[in-house]
Amino acid sequence: MEFSKPLTVTPVEQIPGMLVVDLPVHGDNRGWFKENWQREKMTALGVPDFAPVQNNISYNLKAGTTRGIHAEPWDKFISVATGEIFGAWVDLREGPTFGNVFTTHLDASKAIYVPCGVGNSYQALEDQTAYVYLVNEHWSADAQSRYTFLNLADETSAIEWPIPLDEAELSDKDKKHPQLADVTPFPARKI
Amino acid sequence: MEFSKPLTVTPVEQIPGMLVVDLPVHGDNRGWFKENWQREKMTALGVPDFAPVQNNISYNLKAGTTRGIHAEPWDKFISVATGEIFGAWVDLREGPTFGNVFTTHLDASKAIYVPCGVGNSYQALEDQTAYVYLVNEHWSADAQSRYTFLNLADETSAIEWPIPLDEAELSDKDKKHPQLADVTPFPARKI
Ligand SMILES: Cc1cn([C@H]2C[C@H](O)[C@@H](COP(=O)(O)OP(=O)(O)O[C@H]3O[C@@H](C)[C@H](O)[C@@H](O)[C@H]3O)O2)c(=O)[nH]c1=O
Ligand SMILES: Cc1cn([C@H]2C[C@H](O)[C@@H](COP(=O)(O)OP(=O)(O)O[C@H]3O[C@@H](C)[C@H](O)[C@@H](O)[C@H]3O)O2)c(=O)[nH]c1=O
Repeated sequence: MEFSKPLTVTPVEQIPGMLVVDLPVHGDNRGWFKENWQREKMTALGVPDFAPVQNNISYNLKAGTTRGIHAEPWDKFISVATGEIFGAWVDLREGPTFGNVFTTHLDASKAIYVPCGVGNSYQALEDQTAYVYLVNEHWSADAQSRYTFLNLADETSAIEWPIPLDEAELSDKDKKHPQLADVTPFPARKI
Repeated sequence: MEFSKPLTVTPVEQIPGMLVVDLPVHGDNRGWFKENWQREKMTALGVPDFAPVQNNISYNLKAGTTRGIHAEPWDKFISVATGEIFGAWVDLREGPTFGNVFTTHLDASKAIYVPCGVGNSYQALEDQTAYVYLVNEHWSADAQSRYTFLNLADETSAIEWPIPLDEAELSDKDKKHPQLADVTPFPARKI
């Protein structure tokens, strides 16, 4: 992991509204410290003032664990606390960028802002990877009826998972999502 | 760690305004998932609607690493992503509860709400412990002039650190804080 980078925000060309955030991580004799999200400094650099109401953590016991692809009716600000992930995003919003893909590696020194309607997924690259994120709507079991799902092994997006999916831990739910051709695009307006 | 506890919020008697939050952690074949902070459910149970503007993570390489005791001019909502800590809090607000102490163990299934002016500190009990928290004011180097500090080895609060402080990794700054008798109480009003 790279320490003491300046805070920078870089738009993702392929997926409008998506941002890559480089985070300064301060290392010392104890370990390190980071402002994982900082409203004032980040909005000044173009991160939306997205008003989080929920902070989630998913913990992955084994490298290879893969989750997604879920497009949800809220925005997300994502990073990791420990470990490293390969993240993959597919634009599932109806419109000209439907199907566009972006992938990158994330460690604790990098965050991603994912707008509502963009399919989100990741694979843990280390054992004991803790994935942390903020969202601006409250989750509920019912809200899942407003998700748009895509299969992790979708042949059109053809995401090159570092660890093959047949060696990866997945949820039963995530094994059943449709291929891109069968996806109903996420409606243009937040619902 | 205990899984699937119901969400509960318990006031800390010794330190008014401080709350212990038990978090439901959902375990499965991949690891686990938790709503680390959830505004709607938690405010309904008495957690203040504290409007976080910053999400911080401190990572501790070795068990024994100890940080504090810092009373800051903002409220905090604290938990861990990985590992376990022994947390210790000393009320440093001027008034009848000045000097009151509360300690507890925190793993990922427990969070603590710490009001402004209460001295905060913790010791990592496992290697690679990631401590995560939300605060409702922006930190700045200057803001440290409005902190109230107390020595981790203060003889009055006599915190029983599980790992002796002389075997623990500390910052140079944290070695120099005053004993309780020499502390100027945190002003009653947030400054
Ligand atoms: C997402 C979520 C799940 N849960 C519960 C439901 C289940 O018991 C357990 C696990 O839920 P799952 O949907 O299987 O978790 P998951 O890790 O597969 O889902 C996540 O995948 C990421 C790729 C997405 O971007 C996330 O936003 C989320 O959808 O946690 C909550 O209580 N609150 C929440 O916000
Ligand atoms: C607290 C903080 C520090 N920093 C920087 C300053 C230093 O370069 C580096 C480490 O800062 P330190 O003050 O040494 O970190 P620390 O881990 O000793 O401080 C923390 O201790 C906890 C017990 C408190 O409750 C926290 O709120 C905080 O005070 O991180 C930020 O950029 N933003 C912040 O919000």
